Amino acid sequence: MAMDSSAKVIDGKAVAKQIRDEITAEVSRIREATGVIPGLAVILVGDRKDSATYVRNKKKACESVGINSLEANLPEDSTEEEVLNYISGYNDDPSVHGILVQLPLPSHMNEQNILNAVRIEKDVDGFHPLNIGRLAMRGRDPLFVPCTPKGCIELLHRYNISIKGKRAVVIGRSNIVGMPAALLLQREDATVSIVHSRTSNPEEIIRQADIIISAVGKANMVRGSWIKPGAVIIDVGINPVDDPNSPRGYKLVGDVCYEEAIKVASAVTPVPGGVGPMTIAMLLQNTLISAKRVHNFE
Amino acid sequence: MAMDSSAKVIDGKAVAKQIRDEITAEVSRIREATGVIPGLAVILVGDRKDSATYVRNKKKACESVGINSLEANLPEDSTEEEVLNYISGYNDDPSVHGILVQLPLPSHMNEQNILNAVRIEKDVDGFHPLNIGRLAMRGRDPLFVPCTPKGCIELLHRYNISIKGKRAVVIGRSNIVGMPAALLLQREDATVSIVHSRTSNPEEIIRQADIIISAVGKANMVRGSWIKPGAVIIDVGINPVDDPNSPRGYKLVGDVCYEEAIKVASAVTPVPGGVGPMTIAMLLQNTLISAKRVHNFE
Repeated sequence: MAMDSSAKVIDGKAVAKQIRDEITAEVSRIREATGVIPGLAVILVGDRKDSATYVRNKKKACESVGINSLEANLPEDSTEEEVLNYISGYNDDPSVHGILVQLPLPSHMNEQNILNAVRIEKDVDGFHPLNIGRLAMRGRDPLFVPCTPKGCIELLHRYNISIKGKRAVVIGRSNIVGMPAALLLQREDATVSIVHSRTSNPEEIIRQADIIISAVGKANMVRGSWIKPGAVIIDVGINPVDDPNSPRGYKLVGDVCYEEAIKVASAVTPVPGGVGPMTIAMLLQNTLISAKRVHNFE
Repeated sequence: MAMDSSAKVIDGKAVAKQIRDEITAEVSRIREATGVIPGLAVILVGDRKDSATYVRNKKKACESVGINSLEANLPEDSTEEEVLNYISGYNDDPSVHGILVQLPLPSHMNEQNILNAVRIEKDVDGFHPLNIGRLAMRGRDPLFVPCTPKGCIELLHRYNISIKGKRAVVIGRSNIVGMPAALLLQREDATVSIVHSRTSNPEEIIRQADIIISAVGKANMVRGSWIKPGAVIIDVGINPVDDPNSPRGYKLVGDVCYEEAIKVASAVTPVPGGVGPMTIAMLLQNTLISAKRVHNFE
């Protein structure tokens, strides 16, 4: 039992910074060698404040590494066809290497139709079923790996945490995090179990894990007693909980009870500052990969 | 402990017969209502004896339910282009609702190129990455589910074995059985773990399973002591082992030691006569589904 030791804190902010520096260097290299500037187009429909913030952050991140960012802001009452026209324009635009449709879309639009319209070669989100299928299949490779799960695995790599042969438990089976995270862990030869809302004994299964990736959206659900001593915890959850001491009246916590986990685990991501900063770094990386691929630049 | 009881034998042959009877009735119904006869085209390249046998069995099975079977036999030294030409012809032929390329192909051909050429609407094998992606994603549905894993789940359904909330362990992670079987179990709300060649403690994990699907190709690998009392076992393995008492000098056994499993499990598929007969039945069903879909027949 390692109850008295304290886990290593996996500093996602620092790793993301390092990756952004690497991307900056690569963006310079491709620009100098070929004149090509990687470009990311973001489509935002409506005026949700949170979505506007996410888009602004993506734009800023692009600028910070030298990636061109294009933006289409469409009004809430746009038609599906108008959105599809923008996608079609970006699909054909050789200066755009990645296209991202900010979700959620207004409810009168068919999300699937719109996402499927993005050319797979520019689907830097990696959510196209063809990409997911290739991710699931041995001997195949996706064009892009979804950003958040990719960021989780990247954190393990950067901290030299071996995955092969390890027991890994993914909590949550969403299309955007849990499911692709499980496929990625399996590609790295972990023995993977997926725990979800229908699992009858989550605690028992989670306690067997050497590596836990949690993406379930329930504040402090995983307690210290659910964690095998020495396990590594990647916490994707970002959940607001009341906090009278905070000026905003709330604070953000993960799916895993950090204060307890830190006493049992060997390494753990904080919330915020863990997986969060990695997602945008991986989006920039996918955009760079796309630009390199289309220009055969290595 | 249920050491003295004996497991129910899951009779795949009988279930497959029942399904073929249902398909026969449906094929008559669509033919009488619309004049459409479902058609399956099989492409066989070269003269491997085992492949020829499989193709012959598929042809016979089609005939037995009233499905039209078309066959292209190409010589071993055919070019990839010649095979692609046949696929293209079947892709365009409205009397063909399913296309199956018998594997393995001669080594001078690119299997991926050839399989990818089959129109997804006729990919009754269900191996196209787009189908696999949709199988993995919540809220999406594949056009076809791969035949062998579909047969495994169908056996569970027909024996009223509930899957939801159960611990399921899939042994093996092949593209054609293990991986899609795991995705199917998860779609049915099982808690799924995948055990493979890199798993350090397969025995321990397998012993937790309420449902075991094994597709690993190792004779009698799973012993009675690895099985939780009352578990259900679907054994996809078909492995030849020496048998001096057999006129052929060998017999076929599964991945699970049947004599031991029958004493511990609550239900178990025999080898042969378990999953085997289900695969072709599911192929016929996929062909029927395809014909119904293209003609909007319910």
